[in-house]
This record gives sequence, structure tokens and C-alpha cells, in this order.
Amino acid sequence: MFELGVVYRNIERADAEAAAKLCALGSATVHEAMGRVGLMKPYMRPVFVGAQASGTAVTVLLQPGDNWMLHVAAEQIRPGDIVVAACTADCTDGFFGDLLATSFKARGATGLIIDGGVRDVRVLTEMNFPVWSKAISAKGTVKATLGSVNVPVVCAGALVTPGDVIVADDDGVVVVPAAVARQVLDKASAREALEAGKREKLASGILGLDMYSMREPLERAGLRYID
Amino acid sequence: MFELGVVYRNIERADAEAAAKLCALGSATVHEAMGRVGLMKPYMRPVFVGAQASGTAVTVLLQPGDNWMLHVAAEQIRPGDIVVAACTADCTDGFFGDLLATSFKARGATGLIIDGGVRDVRVLTEMNFPVWSKAISAKGTVKATLGSVNVPVVCAGALVTPGDVIVADDDGVVVVPAAVARQVLDKASAREALEAGKREKLASGILGLDMYSMREPLERAGLRYID
Amino acid sequence: MFELGVVYRNIERADAEAAAKLCALGSATVHEAMGRVGLMKPYMRPVFVGAQASGTAVTVLLQPGDNWMLHVAAEQIRPGDIVVAACTADCTDGFFGDLLATSFKARGATGLIIDGGVRDVRVLTEMNFPVWSKAISAKGTVKATLGSVNVPVVCAGALVTPGDVIVADDDGVVVVPAAVARQVLDKASAREALEAGKREKLASGILGLDMYSMREPLERAGLRYID
Amino acid sequence: MFELGVVYRNIERADAEAAAKLCALGSATVHEAMGRVGLMKPYMRPVFVGAQASGTAVTVLLQPGDNWMLHVAAEQIRPGDIVVAACTADCTDGFFGDLLATSFKARGATGLIIDGGVRDVRVLTEMNFPVWSKAISAKGTVKATLGSVNVPVVCAGALVTPGDVIVADDDGVVVVPAAVARQVLDKASAREALEAGKREKLASGILGLDMYSMREPLERAGLRYID
Amino acid sequence: MFELGVVYRNIERADAEAAAKLCALGSATVHEAMGRVGLMKPYMRPVFVGAQASGTAVTVLLQPGDNWMLHVAAEQIRPGDIVVAACTADCTDGFFGDLLATSFKARGATGLIIDGGVRDVRVLTEMNFPVWSKAISAKGTVKATLGSVNVPVVCAGALVTPGDVIVADDDGVVVVPAAVARQVLDKASAREALEAGKREKLASGILGLDMYSMREPLERAGLRYID
Amino acid sequence: MFELGVVYRNIERADAEAAAKLCALGSATVHEAMGRVGLMKPYMRPVFVGAQASGTAVTVLLQPGDNWMLHVAAEQIRPGDIVVAACTADCTDGFFGDLLATSFKARGATGLIIDGGVRDVRVLTEMNFPVWSKAISAKGTVKATLGSVNVPVVCAGALVTPGDVIVADDDGVVVVPAAVARQVLDKASAREALEAGKREKLASGILGLDMYSMREPLERAGLRYID
Repeated sequence: MFELGVVYRNIERADAEAAAKLCALGSATVHEAMGRVGLMKPYMRPVFVGAQASGTAVTVLLQPGDNWMLHVAAEQIRPGDIVVAACTADCTDGFFGDLLATSFKARGATGLIIDGGVRDVRVLTEMNFPVWSKAISAKGTVKATLGSVNVPVVCAGALVTPGDVIVADDDGVVVVPAAVARQVLDKASAREALEAGKREKLASGILGLDMYSMREPLERAGLRYID
Repeated sequence: MFELGVVYRNIERADAEAAAKLCALGSATVHEAMGRVGLMKPYMRPVFVGAQASGTAVTVLLQPGDNWMLHVAAEQIRPGDIVVAACTADCTDGFFGDLLATSFKARGATGLIIDGGVRDVRVLTEMNFPVWSKAISAKGTVKATLGSVNVPVVCAGALVTPGDVIVADDDGVVVVPAAVARQVLDKASAREALEAGKREKLASGILGLDMYSMREPLERAGLRYID
Repeated sequence: MFELGVVYRNIERADAEAAAKLCALGSATVHEAMGRVGLMKPYMRPVFVGAQASGTAVTVLLQPGDNWMLHVAAEQIRPGDIVVAACTADCTDGFFGDLLATSFKARGATGLIIDGGVRDVRVLTEMNFPVWSKAISAKGTVKATLGSVNVPVVCAGALVTPGDVIVADDDGVVVVPAAVARQVLDKASAREALEAGKREKLASGILGLDMYSMREPLERAGLRYID
Repeated sequence: MFELGVVYRNIERADAEAAAKLCALGSATVHEAMGRVGLMKPYMRPVFVGAQASGTAVTVLLQPGDNWMLHVAAEQIRPGDIVVAACTADCTDGFFGDLLATSFKARGATGLIIDGGVRDVRVLTEMNFPVWSKAISAKGTVKATLGSVNVPVVCAGALVTPGDVIVADDDGVVVVPAAVARQVLDKASAREALEAGKREKLASGILGLDMYSMREPLERAGLRYID
Repeated sequence: MFELGVVYRNIERADAEAAAKLCALGSATVHEAMGRVGLMKPYMRPVFVGAQASGTAVTVLLQPGDNWMLHVAAEQIRPGDIVVAACTADCTDGFFGDLLATSFKARGATGLIIDGGVRDVRVLTEMNFPVWSKAISAKGTVKATLGSVNVPVVCAGALVTPGDVIVADDDGVVVVPAAVARQVLDKASAREALEAGKREKLASGILGLDMYSMREPLERAGLRYID
Repeated sequence: MFELGVVYRNIERADAEAAAKLCALGSATVHEAMGRVGLMKPYMRPVFVGAQASGTAVTVLLQPGDNWMLHVAAEQIRPGDIVVAACTADCTDGFFGDLLATSFKARGATGLIIDGGVRDVRVLTEMNFPVWSKAISAKGTVKATLGSVNVPVVCAGALVTPGDVIVADDDGVVVVPAAVARQVLDKASAREALEAGKREKLASGILGLDMYSMREPLERAGLRYID
């Protein structure tokens, strides 16, 4: 695991339909349905406002300052995939720009999640190719040292196994293991349905204190009101 | 002070009119009128561009990863209040999202200032419910440990006493103690009036060096011009 | 070098035409043409989306919490200049706001690059005066201690000599020494011309692996494909 | 409050004996006895290993890059005081070094807590003058702009009122309001007494699970053991 | 995977002898032998100089501000284990102190790796109980929300599966998957043997340029010497 | 300037005697004598307590994750030199360890200043080879991409020209341009002589307020004392 210098060509992708539907539910709802695990660190931000994407993960392990493996990864992309790139050390270099985006898009990728930097953000925005990154940097990279493609990676604090579902939007990036994608979709959908009703009640002025029956547990915990 | 497990129901709110007028003057002008004290750290950023709010502070002291007290705080909100939430330890979790925003808005809150994370930023933007936070995170929180409501708190480096005026916009978040709100409004208004004239002069090409009579003090301080 | 308390009035500015043309090529392309040196740290961000500027550098060395020298610098600005402000210590104070922007604009400045904070970002946006900074802060500054104008400075990790070309956009801020501005322009233009062709090929589905003939070097480096 | 340009000469100091005794109990125990409030951020670190101090706070509000007020504060120090210095903006400059330490020590200060930088750490170590700071920096400061002495300050996220007890050691810096110093001492002492017995039990191999009767609440919370 | 609310009691531990021997080789040598993967982020630092430990991982997934699961983990420790604690969100609270250290030591633990804060560092040092953490903080935690024990965790950017070998010293913390522990030991030992000879040569003044035959590849890469 | 792929073999070194004498005066005193410019950022810390070094700079420009140029630099070291390594992008990898230290020491280097990571800190301490770095990391690096040796570099925010004097100790790292080394030595020595007298006065209880005649300027600035 986490080996360098290898490309796995056959990966087991999660159910494509589940991936697409999870996107509409949003990262926050999906993360709750996951039992609040699987979220990348909040420093991962979309490069343009309103970006939203989901897909099955093609993973990349990069070396600092070197984007060779992103070119290798391009060949492994199938329509509906989203590329997830981790780096063996913290690096904010611009590993990815408009040319690679053009290539990834041509291969059918739905976006990029990269624990590093990207550039050409104006063009990425115009192309509407969504990217979540930890930095934006004009600095290009070399092509000199091997990493890997489609090995499990830790990206921004989350383990990503090739084929996992990724759900990304303004709130962050969530990883849903392929094996539980369908089940998480069901839970998330149920949750979403419940929230609509709650929203209406709260909008009418009903308090969460009452709607969630919190008054009694708060009192038991010792909360004191002082006039 | 800073006690845990208590909710103060009766707080003395600053003059509502002063609070509303301070908003229009902007955080930078108000901060100057305060004598350059009372500003929260610059890591506090609005979740959408152009957010602007002011109000009287309902304060909340949260525990890391726990948003129970935000529900308790909702009941204490009166129209024109703005909620200010601090945490007993640094935490970027998404303590607040669209449901709580719906509730706070229904109660008349003008916004939220939180030294932690929030989520559902797309919906918050659509609702036009302004929030200043130190992070955006899809990660939800539990409801297990007591904090407090309406105790003095230190939020992002600034002391906030319940009832203080908060002025927040693209430039940051300023705290105006209730007792001086009117006086700060007067100073800030006077300052604003002065600035219009200055802006015109500078636009015409007059230098600040001359407008502010800086040449002589600069020379006295030893500034040398070299051709 | 890096002396305090001096203002150099006569600096040798880079070729104005080269400066203007470099802007259109963008910071990423210019940085590549520079041989990947001369980029400021990626924490330097534009205060509004889509900001783009270039110019010849008028440099300022500030003291923390003190913007006196920005007023001194205003007088040294000629049309087509861009002001580059460094600080003798890390400081996020709002050294610059709408009044100074009005003055700088009246003098013909194309923008500001500051390794510190700025304020009045709403007005800066309305004025379309582009600023790259490391922070946004409502906190004003004093005018008490001398720095310098038009001495070489290190700004956000990059050496800037007065008169150098600065190219700044969404991807970052690049410094092009005056002596090589024309030569960098030629290289960057050539590079840009090449990229158009590449973009088309990649859009048609051709892989970078093939277009850049990477398969053989990858194999030599030991890359293994596993089915 | 937080006003600039003032020195309060008469402050009400906490009980000196309580301050001294709290030191021996350590910041972690005192913080627990405080109900887990009043701790400065963990970036505040002692400049030498094993530093330990307590005292009654003489507070200082500094301007970035300016240590004038530390000289003003020196005169206000009485034996048993500890100086607590905040800054109106984040600044890592070396505000304090061996000369000021010599002066503070001569006045009877037990140490310094500063939300900024210090220098001459080798000499501070030799003098055994304990300092907690957020940075070490050789950079000196100017004496040009007024701050204040003995006003309430927010230092590293904690509110400090002049005369409060400060307890600082390897684990951090805790603020104990003067009014509750004696009561916190009693609680902390009681806690300390209890801990000795617990330590012995745990050393003998008894588990916290049993000693604290956690098995039942864990089961109730739904913990599952899987073989 | 990464589930909450479970404790796995039976984990497959790596070869104990390999774990012990890897410790003597040091984290840098082991990391090289691993092919330069498996290192935790460099913000993980020992709480005292000279700390050194290895062991088989008992993993813990904590909730922010809550150390309940460390007590649950204590029961799962066998002699030679080292506890590795991750948290569902960034948190610097002091999750661990002298009491838990006493308990862990009594159970035979060789140390603790925690992506959070610890306290009582003076006592930990006296006990010679080695801990690597990202922060030191006097702030205690609650016992209210379930995490897990002996599930795979991502700790400071590295995936840790229960039973893996952990090697930690002044240079950092490396994770060696149980399945390859023996093989990594062999490679690391071979590497170590080679280094002794190199060290002698370099000490005699022979250059790495010659010892590693770098001159020719440097020339081929285009390095130019200028006199 | 800042070119890649070149090694300058003949650099003009500062006066060796001045370099040695500046070391004894310490970085803080030297930085004051420099007029408070030329200090590296305070994140540069010695890897062991009490480290102290000075020398004439041999500069290195590294690529992220690549230490090839440190080997090239070794050949350029002459007795009394200190190596200063910058990187084209932020990187915490362990570029330097015991083998390179052995080589550098054999060549007569007095230490290393690196805006990156180092490893083998235990051995570096035993060898008493002083290193200032921004990180400690067990992660090794590749040897694949050219940087440069003996070009001007920006290291941790300071410009270093080959041959400059570097003074480094517990307080930080100062760069003294070769041309002014002697003059700075004179100023720093004079300053040091003055400080001894001041220290005595302050130790006797005389206040800085009186010794530096600050009372009158403070009053003029508007300081108010309140009883």
C-alpha cells in the first residue's frame, strides 16, 4: 500500500448512479450520513464559488514539485471519474493548469481534488472545470520522479481508495467508500427528506430547543437560567 | 466571568439605532473612531462577498465539536441581535448551517460571528444570512456538553460583552461596547464626513504628503531624498 | 541595500511596453518563461476575483503598523507604475484603504502588491483598483517611524528591485527584473503560441503521455503497470 | 476599556499567598479547578524548558513593533507581579530582551507573558527569568506610539484584568480572576489530593474504565466490542 | 472502515522483534527503507528531547475535546504496544496527561502518538514516557462522545492500521505496515550498514559528488560552472 | 540573478575576522547595528538549544524535495563558510542529515541555514554541527532537478548574496552584507559596550523611563496616569 512507481489499471469503481445522486445531496448531508467520518480537512477549497462535483476516484500520489503522475493518471480516467491527488510532502506548487484540465475534461473527468496548488484559475473557471485545492500558485512543476496512480492515498487527512465516491462542493470534500455508497445514499436521502420539514418549523419560529426536545437533557446536564 | 453552564436572560442591549447607523459607516471607520481597539483577528471572513451586518450581541460560549449552546442561544435572540459565538478551544467544525440560520433569522437575528466553522454556505448565501467565521467545514457537531449564553466571551481575540454593538463587513468585525456606542457613532460620523473632502482632493492629484502636512515631520524624523 | 530612512527619486524603469504585454500573458506563463524563479509566495491573493495588473515597481519598505511610507511613495509614482510594499516584520494591519487608493490611482498607479493587510475592499472593488495582499484588516496604522522608498525589498519571498516588472493576476505575483523584461516577453510569447496547439490536441483526446513522449522515460524510470 | 494612552497606577491585586500556592499546583490542575476556562492559546510557550511562574498581573497593551509601554510598565511592577503584554495586532518582533528583564527582575517581577516575540533567550535562561511568548525574534522595536498599562487586555485569547493571578508552566498559561483566586486554590488543592490516590491505583494496573465507572455509560452510549 | 462506536479486541500485531529492532535504526532510515512513504507530518514533535520509541499500534479515534476513548484504549494495550490517537477534527486540547500515562505505562505501552494536545509534560518527562503530539495544552477534555478503538485511522497524514509498527524519534514518526515489517527491517539494516562506510569517506574529505558519481549526471542535466 | 543550473566558483567572501567577531556579539546586537534590517523570519530555529555560528555564506537554491545541489555546494565550501539554502517553493522535507553534515564539517563549514527541513537531529547535536531550519523531518529527498550554487537567494525572507556574513544563534539568523561587515562590527561592538553600563543601572533599580529620559516624550505623546 502507498507504493511508489506503480499504476493500477483495473480498479473497482463505485456505483456511478449513486455517485451522481450523492452530489445533489451535498457534502454536509453526505458526511452526516457517513456517521461524520471521511471528510477532508477544511483547507481544501474550491477555486471558484459554486463549484460542485462528484465522481469515482482515480487516485494519484505525487512527489513535491513534480506533476508527472498527473499525465500518467489522465490515461486511467473514465467518464464519471474525479481525480484525487495527494503528495508525499506538503507542497503548494501549481501542479495542474488549463492544459491538464483540457485533457482531463476530454477524458470525461468531473473534477480534481488536489492536496497541493493549481494555476490558471481564470481559465478553469471559464471551462467550468471544478477543482478543490489547498493553494493557488503560478509555479509550475517538473516531470522527474515517479509517484503512483490508483493506489490508496491520504489526501488532506482522508483515506481515499481508488473507486471511492467523492462528493465536493462549497462546504468541503467527502470520501464515501465504494462498498457503502448505495447505503450512504439511502441514509443521506432520508436525512434530506427530514430536513425539509424541520426547516419549515424553524422558519415559523419554533425553537430547536422544542423541536429536538432539548430542554430536559439540558436541565439534566445542569444548565442554569439566570434572570 | 466566562462561567460554563449558565444562560443570562436579561442583558442590557446597546442603543438599537446607534447599532444600525454604525453598520453603514463600515468596520474600518468605526474601528478608527474606537481609537483602534476592539477589532477581531483578520482570519474572521464573511462566507459570501459583500456581507454586511450589525446588531447587539447575544454571546455564546461553545465547546469544541459541540453546537448545543447555539440552540439555547436561539431562544435569547431578539430582533436586531447578532449572535457572537466563541469556543473554549480552536475548532473548525461546522457548528452552524442552514437549519440554525433559518431559526436565527426567524427570531430576528441579523447575522452570526463565529470563531469556528460553518456549513451550507450556498444556502446561507441564497438566504442572504451573513456569517463571519474562521473556517467552512461540512463536519457536523454533537450536542453533549454545556457552554454558556450571554456571558462575556473572547471571540477571535476581541472581548465581547452581551449587548455590545457588533459591526461586520468585508473588512472585518469590530466590537463597540454598549456604553460608548452613541459616542463612537458620533466620532465615526464626523470622521466619515471629513473623508469625503479628502477623497476629492486626493483624486485631483493632491498628495497626502501635502494634505496631511507630512513633509516637515518626515524631515525631522531624518528622511533623506536621493536623486 | 535595504537601508531605512531614504527615498530614491530616480529609478530605472523597465520597458513600459514589455510590462504591458507581459500582463496579457499571465503570471503562470511569465513565471515559466523566467525559468520558474521570481514568484511571490502563494499567500498573496487578489482582494477581488479577476484582478489583473502589471507595471514597473515603485518599492516601499514599511514598519509594522505604520503606513507613513506609502504616502511618501505616492509622490514617486509615475503612470504605469505598480507599488510593491514589504514590511520589516510580519504584520496584517490595514496599511492601505480607499483614500490611498484614490491618491495612487490619481498618480497613475496600476495597482498595489503588499505583504501586509489592506482595508476598504468593497470600495477598492468598486474603483477597480487591483490589490494583492496577505490579509484584509480594518485595523488602521500610525505614521511614526521611517522606512524607505525605492530600495530593493523582499516582498512575500521575492526580491524586488525598483523598476522591475510586476505581473499579477488570479494565479499570483511574478517579478521580472528590468534587465530581462524584453527577453522574458519573447520567451513567454513563444510559449503561449505553443500552448494553443497543445490545448487543441489535448481537447481532442490525445494524451500528454503521447504528446510529450513521456512513455519511454517513464518506463526507464521504472514505472510498472499492473492489471 | 481597552483604552490607549493611559496608565492605571492603583490596581487591586489578588491575594499574594494564593498566587504563590497556585503555582505549585500547575496550570493543568488550576485550569481544571477554574472549570476549564481562562487558558491562553497553546502557541504560548516558555522560552526555556522547566520555566514555572505565577504572580499578580500588571498588564500592558503594546502597538506592533513598539515596546515603549514595557518601559512604562516597569515602574508599576511590585514584587510578586508578573507582566502580561498583549498587542493591538499580531506581531512577532522581539519586544523584550535582557535589559528589560534586568529591570523587571530588579522591580520584583516573577516573569513575563507576551503575545509577541522576545530575544536574548540565552541570557534570559541564564538569569532564570521565565518568559512565555509566541515567538523568539532578534528584531528590536521602536518607542513611538502609546499603548496602555493596567487596562484589561486580551492576551493569546484570554482576558486578563490587572491584578488577576497568572499561573504559567510547561503546559501553558492560565488566568485566575482576582476575585476567585482563593476559591480556585481550594478546588485545585482538593483535586490535587484526589489525584495522588488515582495515580497509585492506575500504576497498579487498575483501569480508568473501572476506577471512573465508565463501562456502564459507555455501553449506554452504544459502544460495541467486536472480537 | 473509520466507523465510530466500536472497539476491536483482536488485532493482528506485527512481529514484536522487528518492531524493537526498527526502533534502533531510527525513523529516517526506516522511512528510506519504506521507499519514502508512511511518514507522519513534521508538526508531530516529541514532548521531550531525545524521546525514542517503537511498538505495535493500538489505534484510537477521538472526538474533538473528548478523551473518553483513551480510557477505552487502555484496556486493549498489551506490552510492546504504542497508542496512536487520531481525532475527527483538528483539536489541540490536552487529551492526555500524567494519569493516563501512568495507566498506559502500567499496561506496558511504549509511548503515545497523538494528533492533538497533551499536558503534564514535566511529569511525562520525569516518567520517561515518550509522547509525540501536535500541541501541548493544559486544557482538559470531557468524556461524552464515542469514537473508536483499533479501527484504521489517519493520524497526522499517515494511515495507521491496528498492529502496524510505529517508529518514532527526534526526526518524526513512521508507520510500517505489519505485513512488511520484517522486510523493511532487512532493508533498513542493510542501508544502515552501508552508511557507516559512507560516513567515514565523507569525514575524510571525499565529496558526495565523487562518492555517488554525480558529476556526470549533473553535467548531463546541464549544470554549468562559472569562474 | 536567481538563475537555475549554475554554480559560481569564485565568490567574494566578507572579512573572515569580522565574521568571527560578529558571532560573539549575537544576532540581536548585530541586527540593531544593521539598522534593524536583514533578519530572517523567526520560524527559523536552531535544531538544538545553544547553537551559535557565524561564517561567510555559500548559497544554495534547492528545488522542493530535491537535495542534489547540497552535494554540489559541498565542493564550494571553504573553512569558515556557512551554507545558506533556499528553496524555490515551501518544502519541509529533510534535505540534510548526518552524512551531509559529516561532509560539510570535513570541508570546514561552520553550520547550515536552510529554509526547509533537516533530519538526524540527534546526530547533528552529538556532532555539535549547528543547523537552523524551518522544520525537522525524517523524509529524504531525490537528486533529479538542478538548482544553483552561489547565486543570490531569498532565504526565510532575507536576501543573501554569496560571501555575506551570517550570524546565527538562539535569537535568529541575521545577514550582514560583505561590504558593510566591518562597519557593522564596529557599531555592534560600540553598542555592546554601552549595554553593559545600562544593565548595571537597571539591575540597581533605575528605571528605563529615567535612564532613557522617556518621561517627557511620553507626556508629550499624551500619556495619562490615573490613580
